[in-house]
Amino acid sequence: MGIQVVKNKAMEIAMKIKKLGQDDPRRIIHSIKVGVALTLVSLFYYWNPLYDGFGASGIWAVMTVVVIFEFTVGATLSKGLNRGLGTLLAGSLGVGVNYLANLSGQKGEPFVLGIFVFLIAASATFSRFFPGIKARYDYGVLIFILTFSLVSISGYRIDEFLTLAHQRLSTILVGGAICIMISILVCPVWAGETLHNSVTSNINKLADYLEGFGGEYFYCCEDGEHGVATEKGKSFVEGYKAVLNSKSMEDSMANFARWEPKHGKFRFRHPWKHYLKIGSLTRQCAYQIEALNRHLCPQIQTQDPSQLRRMIEVPCKTLSSESGKALKALATGMKAMTNPSPSSQVHLNAAKSAMNDLKDTLKLGTAQTTNLLEIIPDATVASILIEIVKSVEDLSEAVVELSLKAHFKSIEATVSPEKPQLLHKGTINPFVEAEDEQPHVVISVRGTEDGDLTEKKGSSGTTSLPT
Amino acid sequence: MGIQVVKNKAMEIAMKIKKLGQDDPRRIIHSIKVGVALTLVSLFYYWNPLYDGFGASGIWAVMTVVVIFEFTVGATLSKGLNRGLGTLLAGSLGVGVNYLANLSGQKGEPFVLGIFVFLIAASATFSRFFPGIKARYDYGVLIFILTFSLVSISGYRIDEFLTLAHQRLSTILVGGAICIMISILVCPVWAGETLHNSVTSNINKLADYLEGFGGEYFYCCEDGEHGVATEKGKSFVEGYKAVLNSKSMEDSMANFARWEPKHGKFRFRHPWKHYLKIGSLTRQCAYQIEALNRHLCPQIQTQDPSQLRRMIEVPCKTLSSESGKALKALATGMKAMTNPSPSSQVHLNAAKSAMNDLKDTLKLGTAQTTNLLEIIPDATVASILIEIVKSVEDLSEAVVELSLKAHFKSIEATVSPEKPQLLHKGTINPFVEAEDEQPHVVISVRGTEDGDLTEKKGSSGTTSLPT
Repeated sequence: MGIQVVKNKAMEIAMKIKKLGQDDPRRIIHSIKVGVALTLVSLFYYWNPLYDGFGASGIWAVMTVVVIFEFTVGATLSKGLNRGLGTLLAGSLGVGVNYLANLSGQKGEPFVLGIFVFLIAASATFSRFFPGIKARYDYGVLIFILTFSLVSISGYRIDEFLTLAHQRLSTILVGGAICIMISILVCPVWAGETLHNSVTSNINKLADYLEGFGGEYFYCCEDGEHGVATEKGKSFVEGYKAVLNSKSMEDSMANFARWEPKHGKFRFRHPWKHYLKIGSLTRQCAYQIEALNRHLCPQIQTQDPSQLRRMIEVPCKTLSSESGKALKALATGMKAMTNPSPSSQVHLNAAKSAMNDLKDTLKLGTAQTTNLLEIIPDATVASILIEIVKSVEDLSEAVVELSLKAHFKSIEATVSPEKPQLLHKGTINPFVEAEDEQPHVVISVRGTEDGDLTEKKGSSGTTSLPT
Repeated sequence: MGIQVVKNKAMEIAMKIKKLGQDDPRRIIHSIKVGVALTLVSLFYYWNPLYDGFGASGIWAVMTVVVIFEFTVGATLSKGLNRGLGTLLAGSLGVGVNYLANLSGQKGEPFVLGIFVFLIAASATFSRFFPGIKARYDYGVLIFILTFSLVSISGYRIDEFLTLAHQRLSTILVGGAICIMISILVCPVWAGETLHNSVTSNINKLADYLEGFGGEYFYCCEDGEHGVATEKGKSFVEGYKAVLNSKSMEDSMANFARWEPKHGKFRFRHPWKHYLKIGSLTRQCAYQIEALNRHLCPQIQTQDPSQLRRMIEVPCKTLSSESGKALKALATGMKAMTNPSPSSQVHLNAAKSAMNDLKDTLKLGTAQTTNLLEIIPDATVASILIEIVKSVEDLSEAVVELSLKAHFKSIEATVSPEKPQLLHKGTINPFVEAEDEQPHVVISVRGTEDGDLTEKKGSSGTTSLPT
């Protein structure tokens, strides 16, 4: 029995390892990269010519590799530069302080050194509480304190500490250079790209929710044939929840990304900070969706839909799905780093006009019921949806601002990055010259419940155009 | 001019430093503690008897102090234990691997060592991606990789590396012990206490909002004399926003707190994990308040309140302020680590009965307006408030659960931590025997808009009771 338990546990762990690797294969590659970098710096010890040059200081190279090799290039660069700068600054300061301490004679030296160590360690530690320093230079300050203490303390013992400082600095440089080169050259993981993808995928998650919401909420109003869509729809509900707590991850990625050189489509000074603004607007929208989601609970859904629900069904569904499509188009354009596609504006306008329809419906439609309590869930949903359109508009403006700041490529208006989407489901019969002398296109509009299946075969238009 | 600019800049920085220290004086104390700890370990170098014992390994003590001394006791303990364990494990493994490599002869040794370093570094790096290991043992695994590389690589060079390992381990122990002792004995900052205070203060922020919301939202319905309350009320609006992004801070504090020994009112195995549950429910409630807050915007407020707003004003105000008071009582009890006070249950019940009043008002009150759009903001506010009562109830249950798990002190039911509060404002004239032979109490109910000013002078009752 005991063996079986161990076996099961081992299987479980093996499955977990497999899943972790499958979820993000970059993790496996990163682990291998760290192994390679460490084996490389081991050469400092194994290979005699190098050992003779650097001596026992080779351990600093090992230490540097272990400590600064991070998952993303930005984090590795940030730690490497922080370590280098911190060591350099603290080293020079340490040399100066040692010189001062030497002046105070054999007896006074330890006291002078002790006082300096205390003062500099305490003030540098305090500086780590500044939010700006904490976010970017925390590790550098740590290394500053460490190196200053080591240099000034060792200086008291080892007379040739300039050699030591030089050895230490050069081994750190070699270790850091190996890390940074492997990190950048072998399957690099860019913090900037991760941030870019995470922000766009968050917008996509909201879009999925909004596209699915209408069908789910108004499910009971519909006839049986739409039941399948609802089953499929369940999966979108959980996606947006991850957006709610995305702030800390985005903040740290933006901090790392600013160290990264030009990569892929991103310049060195890509406006990473602006992603935080978009991220914050995305979370605002996610909070509203959280409020909306409370109304999807089955206990609130009545089997017999209220009159109000029937009244608002069409505009609400259009508003929700068009907002979702506008977000999806925004996310697609942003992901491809092209100027926001016109289709996102089209969908946003459609959502706005649906919002006005909804407002009109509410303004004109008389409440036939005397029971306000019954209509409250539907009224709330309508109210939240109206606000969501505003949120989507804000988000859209922020993405446009980003596209200007980051010089996104503009695409020709006629080339849509997605399959063309029209508001109405219809086919356009191309004009055939042989059959008819009059140039025309015939467009038949089949329905409005799904805009995805449109095929645009001829020139665009919304009605028959005999010319 | 140039000097003036520098002077202004220096003044600005000085002000920032002062503010940082005033905001949390523990930061200054922490900085001094780090300085003291570093000066203490410097003794390893300055004081000859110690130096003779430990030799150049004294630098490991300095390094340990700089690296593991964190702001909270829990973080320091976590890093210290991780460092100790990681060093011990990697040290023993390094010795074993060295023994194996020795067997493979002069030529084979570097290859065997290189392969082991690669395999162990890569697999340990991969293990850092497991969420459970990342949260608690990340630093330990880092130190494991570092020590293993150092020991196995140095082993190839230095024959007496057992002495080195022993020296390194003992200096790390001494450095760690100094850090942990200073951290615990001198003005300790406990992660557990910080988590406890942060969770209760977050509940308090929501309570402030809910207590202020009614007066703010229904301001335009009231006459001039309440204007002052509104001015004062403005400050509560921003407080809750900090709650929205509190997750990552709470997660890390809970991880540190589990390392901390008994301190203050907290046992060693205090149910810190349960605070995360309460924190998550608090955020749920904050999301709802975020939805509510959108309706405080001035552009939505109409100068002429709708009929519906007048109808729902009293129950909404009561619901909101009683929910706020229930949360405040919960937070007060939780902060003092006493069982949830009966008053929180009283307020929760009052909020629930206000919720039922509100529902009844909505059920019975006819919508005289034909313009549904006009009543939608008020309907939404009512709907969100109804949901908030459910959230407050969930939060209350979670706090009760915590009080059981953490064995909070129970207080006597008759001792209320606050002044007694009733739902209705009224006075009870005590029965005066001399004037009238019939025993009775006269209760006059003056109004319902404020429950705070009630004085309970006689026996309780809801109407005149001539007996």
